[in-house]
Amino acid sequence: MHKVAEIIAIGSELLTPQRMDTNSLVVTESLNSLGVEVVTKQVVGDDRARLTDAIRTAVQRSDIVVLIGGLGPTEDDVTRDAAAAALGRKLVLSLEQESILIGKFRLINRQMAPNNLRQAYLVEGAEALPNPHGSAPGQFLSTDRGALAMLPGPPRELKPMVADELTPRLRPVIPPQVIKERTFRITGIGESDLDTLIAPVYTKYTNPTTTVLSSPGDLFVSLRAIAETEGRADGLLREVGNAIASLLGNRIYSEDPKETLDQVVGRLLRKNHATVATAESCTGGLIAARLTERGGSSDFFLAGYVAYTDAQKQEMLGVSGKLIEKHSAVSEPVAAAMAEGARGRSGASYALSSTGYAGPSGGTDHDPIGTVYLGIAGPGETRVLRIRYVPERERVRALSTQAALELLRRTLMKVSLSN
Amino acid sequence: MHKVAEIIAIGSELLTPQRMDTNSLVVTESLNSLGVEVVTKQVVGDDRARLTDAIRTAVQRSDIVVLIGGLGPTEDDVTRDAAAAALGRKLVLSLEQESILIGKFRLINRQMAPNNLRQAYLVEGAEALPNPHGSAPGQFLSTDRGALAMLPGPPRELKPMVADELTPRLRPVIPPQVIKERTFRITGIGESDLDTLIAPVYTKYTNPTTTVLSSPGDLFVSLRAIAETEGRADGLLREVGNAIASLLGNRIYSEDPKETLDQVVGRLLRKNHATVATAESCTGGLIAARLTERGGSSDFFLAGYVAYTDAQKQEMLGVSGKLIEKHSAVSEPVAAAMAEGARGRSGASYALSSTGYAGPSGGTDHDPIGTVYLGIAGPGETRVLRIRYVPERERVRALSTQAALELLRRTLMKVSLSN
Repeated sequence: MHKVAEIIAIGSELLTPQRMDTNSLVVTESLNSLGVEVVTKQVVGDDRARLTDAIRTAVQRSDIVVLIGGLGPTEDDVTRDAAAAALGRKLVLSLEQESILIGKFRLINRQMAPNNLRQAYLVEGAEALPNPHGSAPGQFLSTDRGALAMLPGPPRELKPMVADELTPRLRPVIPPQVIKERTFRITGIGESDLDTLIAPVYTKYTNPTTTVLSSPGDLFVSLRAIAETEGRADGLLREVGNAIASLLGNRIYSEDPKETLDQVVGRLLRKNHATVATAESCTGGLIAARLTERGGSSDFFLAGYVAYTDAQKQEMLGVSGKLIEKHSAVSEPVAAAMAEGARGRSGASYALSSTGYAGPSGGTDHDPIGTVYLGIAGPGETRVLRIRYVPERERVRALSTQAALELLRRTLMKVSLSN
Repeated sequence: MHKVAEIIAIGSELLTPQRMDTNSLVVTESLNSLGVEVVTKQVVGDDRARLTDAIRTAVQRSDIVVLIGGLGPTEDDVTRDAAAAALGRKLVLSLEQESILIGKFRLINRQMAPNNLRQAYLVEGAEALPNPHGSAPGQFLSTDRGALAMLPGPPRELKPMVADELTPRLRPVIPPQVIKERTFRITGIGESDLDTLIAPVYTKYTNPTTTVLSSPGDLFVSLRAIAETEGRADGLLREVGNAIASLLGNRIYSEDPKETLDQVVGRLLRKNHATVATAESCTGGLIAARLTERGGSSDFFLAGYVAYTDAQKQEMLGVSGKLIEKHSAVSEPVAAAMAEGARGRSGASYALSSTGYAGPSGGTDHDPIGTVYLGIAGPGETRVLRIRYVPERERVRALSTQAALELLRRTLMKVSLSN
């Protein structure tokens, strides 16, 4: 049976606009590695009644419940009390924990304030989890559905306790299962178009589950398979993943969830012993900035020109004034001339150009705000794409930067420039 | 009566070790500004049944419930369905929202995939919250205890909706009190140095409360006063704020919390009828991108050169090869020559330059990784600053971009270049 987990982080400071619970990421990673899915995370303040309710609900609906924080010595450390109340058990003073605590204070030559003794109380039936990095021990106990753990809030106490104490104790509670993931990164298509394309495949399967995530100009399709063996999980990912991959085709720029489009382009440029230059108007330097984002980009990046005015397009890139006059600076011929100018002047194998109306002002009837021409000049030929975006400056600039990188990727991969 | 709120972020990706819900911080800030405390936050996966349960519990125990995410067009966007089920209401197709959606797709000349129509369904009795930055509208409705809101997950859609739509609708639900804020934006000083400087003043007061927030190269000092009248709140802000401002002096670049450093620089350039060019090496186009971030930047931005190699520094900017040979490309004389070259070639009143070791490789004993020279050439003179950052590529690039803008601001303000 597939086991599910729930994490409750405790602390009023985690409910302010300034602070976040990050401990749950560490716990999630450990749970996932055991094949347990986290289905709910919560943050509850230092409020005994609310926390008791939350724990009571959690142990009823989830197999593994992990409580983080609220184990310290002060009045507002309510986790022990709330857990005991939720489970209908008592809190019991552990003489062993008491002597460990006294020993820790003796070691640093400090008088132990009486409130510290709270930390030596365990929920009836719980095992103490040693905490070599702090005073409060963790606790671990069996529940009707599985297990409940309490861990200290300071990350430097929590992390080793998860690795050394929690994970080994959870393993016997959990049937052996493996979670594996496969991710496709895609650009150049909208989220809903992507979903329309691949939903007919992925909705047929509940394992693997498929999630589509989007950030501007960047989509992730993530498949996640749960099985009893690695081989079986791989098989599920292969079956469904390959079907999705064949629908997406060349739109997939990476299968590595951490590899960004600029990294892919850098890798292809290096492989082809090719170099690149940029000639930017509406993107204002963003394409150059993306291409130089990683260390070692001087291997392939030669020169960037940000030619914002008509005069500078002539001066920096040698675009003819007549061409601009005839077609306007935002046009296919000017995008082509900018790319060719940057390629010629820098000596790069490829040059990317951008010219468009990012807004909020500008635009014509034919080319309203949001229209961008992206050019690429290469050893073979010069190509220009015309794209229309939602007319919102920041988005136009970010999306056309991403589209320019994609234009270079497709050129280097020798695949079609449009979908 | 004191009102309490609860936030539920929806999305299976937010339950993985890689992703976190950060939207709730934005919502918390808005709720706190209205005097409402957030008492529980949750993350629930794309699971209709679990989400329905969570919403049902939330509306019973909290006055304000805010749901974030899961409003998109795909199968796994379950928030609308779950909210309707939890409240025992129907989902109703809004013809108005349908026509808004169709209009949005028409604007970008794109065929609307049929699944998009899901986004036009509202929970019975809900008011749609306009979403100018995306396709899914938010929703707002009254509950027995107060209100329930549904907001889209992408931060660029959520943030304006919280400010423009949610906050004004919550205000009538909440008992009146005046909360006023005063913010100083500062760059060029570290967070702990700043705190050492101003803590002796602000720790004397509990109203206003003072918060120091930092993002790389950018600090906010925010004062927040709560009072029964506007006049009283203003008085508190004036007293404490003026004391802090006199300690910070010229380091304050704006008192408008939304005005960024590039906007301040743009305003000053316009006021002085001055123009600017850039000559970038280690920042790779980021300074130009920042200067052209806002509409109308062609008023003052002339030209950007990204000269990544030694050859391009000579070719594009006329830096002498001998100078580079003698001092190396990362040096004070080369930074000066780059700025002067960009100023000369573009005809701009000012030119900024950057050359440094962003890492991960490079650096010398004298100038280890993280060392950056920033130059400014102006009508009067050329100045170069040498700065050493923590050797971390992304940070070095971002911080030196910000420092270059600050260099221009101080030059335009005619104040000292160092603190």
